[in-house]
Amino acid sequence: MKAWRLPYSKADRLDLAEVPTPEPAAGEVLIAVRAIGLNSSEMQLIRGDWDGPGVHRPYPLIPGIEAAGEIVAVGDGVPADRIGERVTVHYRWSCGHCSECVSGNENTCLVAASPTAPKFGRTIDGAYAEYARVPAGFAIPIPEGVSFVDAAAMTVSGGTAWHMAMVRGQVRANETVLVTGGSSGVGTMLVQLARLAGCRVAATAGGPEKANRLHELGVDLVLDHRAPGDWTEPLNRLSDGAGVDCVLDIAGAGTWPRFLPAMRQRGRVVVGGYMSGAQASFDLKESTIREITIMGASSWTRNAVREVLSLAAQGAIRPVIGAQLPFERLPDGLAMLRDRTSYGNLVVEVG
Amino acid sequence: MKAWRLPYSKADRLDLAEVPTPEPAAGEVLIAVRAIGLNSSEMQLIRGDWDGPGVHRPYPLIPGIEAAGEIVAVGDGVPADRIGERVTVHYRWSCGHCSECVSGNENTCLVAASPTAPKFGRTIDGAYAEYARVPAGFAIPIPEGVSFVDAAAMTVSGGTAWHMAMVRGQVRANETVLVTGGSSGVGTMLVQLARLAGCRVAATAGGPEKANRLHELGVDLVLDHRAPGDWTEPLNRLSDGAGVDCVLDIAGAGTWPRFLPAMRQRGRVVVGGYMSGAQASFDLKESTIREITIMGASSWTRNAVREVLSLAAQGAIRPVIGAQLPFERLPDGLAMLRDRTSYGNLVVEVG
Repeated sequence: MKAWRLPYSKADRLDLAEVPTPEPAAGEVLIAVRAIGLNSSEMQLIRGDWDGPGVHRPYPLIPGIEAAGEIVAVGDGVPADRIGERVTVHYRWSCGHCSECVSGNENTCLVAASPTAPKFGRTIDGAYAEYARVPAGFAIPIPEGVSFVDAAAMTVSGGTAWHMAMVRGQVRANETVLVTGGSSGVGTMLVQLARLAGCRVAATAGGPEKANRLHELGVDLVLDHRAPGDWTEPLNRLSDGAGVDCVLDIAGAGTWPRFLPAMRQRGRVVVGGYMSGAQASFDLKESTIREITIMGASSWTRNAVREVLSLAAQGAIRPVIGAQLPFERLPDGLAMLRDRTSYGNLVVEVG
Repeated sequence: MKAWRLPYSKADRLDLAEVPTPEPAAGEVLIAVRAIGLNSSEMQLIRGDWDGPGVHRPYPLIPGIEAAGEIVAVGDGVPADRIGERVTVHYRWSCGHCSECVSGNENTCLVAASPTAPKFGRTIDGAYAEYARVPAGFAIPIPEGVSFVDAAAMTVSGGTAWHMAMVRGQVRANETVLVTGGSSGVGTMLVQLARLAGCRVAATAGGPEKANRLHELGVDLVLDHRAPGDWTEPLNRLSDGAGVDCVLDIAGAGTWPRFLPAMRQRGRVVVGGYMSGAQASFDLKESTIREITIMGASSWTRNAVREVLSLAAQGAIRPVIGAQLPFERLPDGLAMLRDRTSYGNLVVEVG
């Protein structure tokens, strides 16, 4: 099969190679990949910025955490009738047995968090290939009416957004919600979920073109993060003077000084990313007086993926696809992510 | 009556004066003060560090937010049978009508938060006197078996601790809890509430003497904040390797780098103070991966005071009184707070 491979650590480039098609081990399925979603974490891995202490991987490595396709073979113990099933891959393989997993929090699984755990597309071969093998339990059925391209565009971004907005943030009707990084893949899903929940939605974006596209998604107020100035006044106007109830933050530390003064009493900040910086600084006195809650959101559960796929099948949300590239041009998509010229999700079609 | 007064803004000293005894206005009660609790926020007010933008007050001003005593007169509309009632003062006069109050969050009352709202002992005369007048609804009955001294010691510290540990932190049996600033008035209440809830309790303190007294309160592990070194190892040992579930933080920014690495997946930090600094800095990546939640806790509700007084009446908790001074020596107590030579709560007896 063909695969894009990282030749060595921190190579900062991928090679297109012809490699043996893998065979599914016991408990695994083999997926013929039809669409691949590109994610900025993969760009970081290729550059060598992803590695934490204790993480090791063999090279060459096939990156990629997001793929949708069709099951074409099953390993021992997996029912043969899964062959032909349309599935998307949940990349984070939780153990199912630790205290986090059994309390419904497979996203913070203690085993998956360990540096030595196998990580699809990070420490073992992943999605940037014509075939991928994954444990059967992490191949999630795609409902009818959702294409492979749509599924590959929204497994990561939709799962992340659902976990941030619904599980952690618990946004609800009539709240004022701010999405930072609104024009990204996750951002476009966040604004749709907040709209669907009945919220007034503000979002940040860079430049008028992205602002226009966010307005088309139903965003009530777009804040251009490239422009100087305070966000308190427009956010107060949007919320009838009450302030922002919930910030869904994927832009990170750089935007904190601009939105914190605009938050209402007992407002929540859900942090799911840090594109503009990871070192946040804030005034404990101010945030304590207003009882502000800041909560990290770590990846998502399989249930989050099922929820967003189901909403897409009903037409309630749709993944925003900024570019769709053939397999041979996969590195061009990563360059778009790197240069921030993309809008929404980037998908690579296979075959 | 006799009263300690701040003669002018930022005077950094109090004068003992003979002033007219106030009369209760409509809806108010007059309290003959029997005991006054001293709080570090009052020291800040006297120094002039408390004022925010828009705060104004007449001088001379009687400071003091915490008093217990007996109702000796009532204003129009207050039932006369409240005369003789033993009460403690809830200093934060919420409006009862705003969206925060009617949703059970009188501690974040939008009206009380306004700079122009009357604030007992801060913008209007308060507790450092032989008599104090307060709205009848904010004079909370003291249950039988709790002395005036005990009530004055635990209205602020116990109310703060209940709100932090029970309402915001929701600590529960078998969790590992760290209290920063454990030997303060609030700290000694926090460790008792966490013990009562069935938690393993660690606390920080300065020096071996305070450490010993915390051990007597049932603290399992005392961390000397003056000593260098990492807290991760001892906290991991205390929690059987799981990490800290909840930090009840009144020490603030200075301790964050020492406890954050020791927190478990989905751990909570409840911030109720910032003695060691208010400008906190932390890594969004680390706190997001582990889904750490950081929540401000702002003062407390009247219900919190009722809860801790009831527990004290049952003997389940007791205020820790580090020093008990006569009215004439009130400024000596403030100096002890300033110099951090005190342990637990400081109470001034009146009459």
